Amino acid sequence: MHFGSDNWAGAHPQILAALAQASEAGTARAYGGDEWTARVEQQLGAIFEAPCAVFLAPTGTAANGLALAALCRPWQSVLCHEEAHINVDECAAPEHYTGGAKIIGLPGEQAVPDASELAARLARWPIGQPHYAQPGALSLTQLSESGAVLDPDMIARLTEIARRYNLPTHMDGARFANALAALDCSPAEITWKAGVDILCLGASKGGALACEAVIVFHPDAFPARAEALKYLRKRAGALVSKHRFLAAQMLGWLADDLWLDLAKAANAQTAKLAVEVQKAGLELAWPARGNVSFALLSAQMASALNAAGAVFYPWPGLGPGRRRPTSQEVLARFVTSFETTDAEIAAFGAALAIARPTL
Amino acid sequence: MHFGSDNWAGAHPQILAALAQASEAGTARAYGGDEWTARVEQQLGAIFEAPCAVFLAPTGTAANGLALAALCRPWQSVLCHEEAHINVDECAAPEHYTGGAKIIGLPGEQAVPDASELAARLARWPIGQPHYAQPGALSLTQLSESGAVLDPDMIARLTEIARRYNLPTHMDGARFANALAALDCSPAEITWKAGVDILCLGASKGGALACEAVIVFHPDAFPARAEALKYLRKRAGALVSKHRFLAAQMLGWLADDLWLDLAKAANAQTAKLAVEVQKAGLELAWPARGNVSFALLSAQMASALNAAGAVFYPWPGLGPGRRRPTSQEVLARFVTSFETTDAEIAAFGAALAIARPTL
Amino acid sequence: MHFGSDNWAGAHPQILAALAQASEAGTARAYGGDEWTARVEQQLGAIFEAPCAVFLAPTGTAANGLALAALCRPWQSVLCHEEAHINVDECAAPEHYTGGAKIIGLPGEQAVPDASELAARLARWPIGQPHYAQPGALSLTQLSESGAVLDPDMIARLTEIARRYNLPTHMDGARFANALAALDCSPAEITWKAGVDILCLGASKGGALACEAVIVFHPDAFPARAEALKYLRKRAGALVSKHRFLAAQMLGWLADDLWLDLAKAANAQTAKLAVEVQKAGLELAWPARGNVSFALLSAQMASALNAAGAVFYPWPGLGPGRRRPTSQEVLARFVTSFETTDAEIAAFGAALAIARPTL
Amino acid sequence: MHFGSDNWAGAHPQILAALAQASEAGTARAYGGDEWTARVEQQLGAIFEAPCAVFLAPTGTAANGLALAALCRPWQSVLCHEEAHINVDECAAPEHYTGGAKIIGLPGEQAVPDASELAARLARWPIGQPHYAQPGALSLTQLSESGAVLDPDMIARLTEIARRYNLPTHMDGARFANALAALDCSPAEITWKAGVDILCLGASKGGALACEAVIVFHPDAFPARAEALKYLRKRAGALVSKHRFLAAQMLGWLADDLWLDLAKAANAQTAKLAVEVQKAGLELAWPARGNVSFALLSAQMASALNAAGAVFYPWPGLGPGRRRPTSQEVLARFVTSFETTDAEIAAFGAALAIARPTL
Repeated sequence: MHFGSDNWAGAHPQILAALAQASEAGTARAYGGDEWTARVEQQLGAIFEAPCAVFLAPTGTAANGLALAALCRPWQSVLCHEEAHINVDECAAPEHYTGGAKIIGLPGEQAVPDASELAARLARWPIGQPHYAQPGALSLTQLSESGAVLDPDMIARLTEIARRYNLPTHMDGARFANALAALDCSPAEITWKAGVDILCLGASKGGALACEAVIVFHPDAFPARAEALKYLRKRAGALVSKHRFLAAQMLGWLADDLWLDLAKAANAQTAKLAVEVQKAGLELAWPARGNVSFALLSAQMASALNAAGAVFYPWPGLGPGRRRPTSQEVLARFVTSFETTDAEIAAFGAALAIARPTL
Repeated sequence: MHFGSDNWAGAHPQILAALAQASEAGTARAYGGDEWTARVEQQLGAIFEAPCAVFLAPTGTAANGLALAALCRPWQSVLCHEEAHINVDECAAPEHYTGGAKIIGLPGEQAVPDASELAARLARWPIGQPHYAQPGALSLTQLSESGAVLDPDMIARLTEIARRYNLPTHMDGARFANALAALDCSPAEITWKAGVDILCLGASKGGALACEAVIVFHPDAFPARAEALKYLRKRAGALVSKHRFLAAQMLGWLADDLWLDLAKAANAQTAKLAVEVQKAGLELAWPARGNVSFALLSAQMASALNAAGAVFYPWPGLGPGRRRPTSQEVLARFVTSFETTDAEIAAFGAALAIARPTL
Repeated sequence: MHFGSDNWAGAHPQILAALAQASEAGTARAYGGDEWTARVEQQLGAIFEAPCAVFLAPTGTAANGLALAALCRPWQSVLCHEEAHINVDECAAPEHYTGGAKIIGLPGEQAVPDASELAARLARWPIGQPHYAQPGALSLTQLSESGAVLDPDMIARLTEIARRYNLPTHMDGARFANALAALDCSPAEITWKAGVDILCLGASKGGALACEAVIVFHPDAFPARAEALKYLRKRAGALVSKHRFLAAQMLGWLADDLWLDLAKAANAQTAKLAVEVQKAGLELAWPARGNVSFALLSAQMASALNAAGAVFYPWPGLGPGRRRPTSQEVLARFVTSFETTDAEIAAFGAALAIARPTL
Repeated sequence: MHFGSDNWAGAHPQILAALAQASEAGTARAYGGDEWTARVEQQLGAIFEAPCAVFLAPTGTAANGLALAALCRPWQSVLCHEEAHINVDECAAPEHYTGGAKIIGLPGEQAVPDASELAARLARWPIGQPHYAQPGALSLTQLSESGAVLDPDMIARLTEIARRYNLPTHMDGARFANALAALDCSPAEITWKAGVDILCLGASKGGALACEAVIVFHPDAFPARAEALKYLRKRAGALVSKHRFLAAQMLGWLADDLWLDLAKAANAQTAKLAVEVQKAGLELAWPARGNVSFALLSAQMASALNAAGAVFYPWPGLGPGRRRPTSQEVLARFVTSFETTDAEIAAFGAALAIARPTL
């Protein structure tokens, strides 16, 4: 019953096989001069139906930091949700990567920035005045920290507001695949077609060992972005020397739609988990569309579930209606992965049934 | 005939197997809370015969940057050889990681800082005056950039000078295993027993996919170092989420002395390559003790060798006697890895024989 | 009718005279090795009844940045009010000076952090977890951005909460003199006796040309702070070479209680302005104790006052009850200085009387 | 007998008078929105015969840092003389301002980068390779650290080499006036007409209290530079709030060619000092054209001069022929200012005559 996070999972055997194959291929140029890396860029270009400059990195924090540093100058600000990973969970890495840009959190339900709050914040910004760190970029997260799936319209509404102030948009796509699997649209429709300029596409949580891609869409139109990333990545210590091993992970993950299949599998387990929660007479905090769900539990029930072997994270963020849980409540976060088994879900259902009477 | 670099090699099958095993073990806590990570710290403590705090990172540049940031404040300087990797080849990553410390290069034969130059530089430093970035740390490289093996005495002589000014010592050990394999001493004798405070132990070049260890010796005596590294690593985007996969690489590499066996194998191929060079009537720039060797070739001969299929790097650094090669010369660097075959060496010997008459 | 800011005023003649005297004294060591600088440290030590290490700087932004950099590491956070100058008005200078620390804004009436919010924020901080920029310092502002005078109890209540988490406290004292003049207590009682570790004492707004003092209280107990500031100041370009001219300003300002007399004069004009506002049937946003006051005006009235020649700043912050003014309202900020004349106040009263009927 | 530095001098009475006048003018907008500031830009534009964007700052270190940050990105390098102020004397401020760019020192006689060394360094730079911090800017110093006057041809030769690699040129003009006074040319001829993009024009050493101007030539052709400086200056804490007092210093210094008169006066005293040195049978290290001269003294003689009351700086840099003084030698630096009197020069001559026999 492990619902701690999808990065508690192992790697998918196909990805391990891809690593082994890449290794057996003999000598290959280091630092991205290899053929696997070239294929990654081609393949992502095909998937996203657009020219892409791709920079692989070993962690999501590195990928996000690089992307923001490519979009923002140190005297600028990144606008994101107040609970965004870049604002809360990365130990000021975006500040480090950008050389000290300000990360500014906006309110919004289920960790999605509220469009009217974004518009209002920008409308009252003293643009051009040196005392105020100027708006530099918008950052969205797909799935949001609270598990929301951002559909094309939602994204476009936010990026259009940003665009009015010449702000490019970064998307933290640590669970992009889970969002895509939950939507009936193409990768392009929730990225560049909706106004996203740079996507950090995460494979680690979706089945790889450690592989994230910073994807610059239409690099020819924004040559400074790819040019900056070339050096920013090395300087950040995020340019892996035996680079084929990052590229092989990404290729293995993308091959034969494995990435989507694994995301669908993870999402399906969350859907089953939701059924168990409801069977126990509880409610999910928000409808579960991806692989992350939340339920507001009594502290007693949370303890009982933990005692029964259920592992989950007491979420430090806000619940529905942006209400902070009381000291008697636990906002439990449940994350399923491609490895989550039906047996785990069933065991969780049983634990819920037992824990329930303790309320 | 690939002598470009040891990071052009693949990964050793035992390390790939260790990854697969770690993956199959099921759910494991992320970010280093797993059992593999705990074992790495124990094992390195046993190998180095000292308490160690270990921070794994995916690249050598990240490892070096983290170590220097743990030792130096932004208004300080790092003293190293003028051709050190941290000074030349990391795109100002040490400056980035330390928040802007100065990297100051010293002269010295075969990319080892000259002890008397180090002493003289420190002796004339205006210590305590705010105009001058104060000395913060000494950094050594094992093997040096020009392939020198630093023996215990050489290291101790340099660290003792540094110690007189309260400078701790960092060792960039990207090819530490090759140096150790070339020496008749223990790991402790060329690290903390010789005055090294933090070692960046590289496994990537020695057979892993992407794994480096920042090792703080005697962390209880210097608690601020490990405390800083805990946050520095996350903030740098160098904390890999599925951390067991870094740890498993390190464990696989260390298991049954594989790391030393692979280093010995690589060193042995360089020794054979040296024989071929001498057979061709050429001289190595410096005696080859590790897995990196150099020869000053005429530009014509370098081209002929390239044409025959020999891949090597025209080294941009200084040759013997700190002489810069002329435009008619190439200081060729040859690096062998655990994958270098006897056939490659033989082919290189043949190419040398053919290329020779073109001189 | 200039109520734009107290930094629109000139310099007090006694301070200009002090500059001229210092200049005529002939040759003097640069960079703070002069006798004026030594006297500043003595005099501030006497005024604050404590040993002090003093670092003069030409701007308040530099002083605040230096102080925060001396207290915080880059992976830490500074807790302050959400509308604090360091968070809003310094173009991310604190991020720049600290090397990327996070500035975290807390709510609270009249720009003073709410004690229970501070306590709650710290209580739920994941202390020791690498994902979260750790709490590093508390920052208070005296006068607050919204003109509040922080009395000894208020300060002590906040610093005690911070102290429980080992957080030192910085005080931005750009208008410290105005607060002191409004209180019946000693400088010590609203600084180190109430838990403040570093004070940025501003003389510029109070009558100097450009002079601020970073005061480290009890430097012997915290030697790392003064040591860091020595280099941080130079590195920031904030070490003025002809340093006697900074020191002479500070000495002239402090001499014969000029600083307090000027602050009292400025405060008195705000008190008179408040009477005019009330005579016009309007209310101040908060009781005016220092030299900064606010009134929520209709946009029409604000325009009428501007048309009549009254210069004031439409405040972009929150009004009473933390309510944001509507688009039909202007939260007008009025700042008086030691140069504000009775005639200006009278003219403002007349303008209010005329503008009033337009409502 | 004060030859320590020209920043040991006071301020010129005309500049103090300009401050007093500016103060008496009543209320003025802060942060550069005042009329004095506008006049500075006009006047410098007229003097340099070109459109200029001007950013005043209180220190030379701030001015240099700002200029370099406007020209370079953090993954780039600044090429300068190895003994340049920005490389040696600013406590890594350029690294701080630029966010970690590399400062790379070149050899050259009398602290002027050697043109052929510059060309060779750039020729072997691995342009476009991510491992190497890319060349970002050339920085020259006028007067050089060792007192050299750079004439138009010398400057043009160096900037032309830089231009071939698209490098803009920064000039640290802390003693620009002294150089101009020594040359028979216009300000334009040793700046933008010779390829300088940004000049840091220092008034502090030449008679002001604390005032330096960052001058961007032809800002319309390089809009990003002035745009960046607007925010960089505030963020660095270098935007003085009562900005008229910086501007008034600059206006007072420029008025009626005071700046050139003071520079000529300082230069003339150095010429007289040179005569005294030669009368004593000693030689200057280099011909003295500005207000800074050097002589290689025996340690004994240096002590004797000090004992006789002569204050000068034992220069830590290289002597003629780039030879480092031995422990028995002192490379004495003598700086004269507009305040240096004939009596001081005469007294120094007498001291030389007395000290001489001790050799």
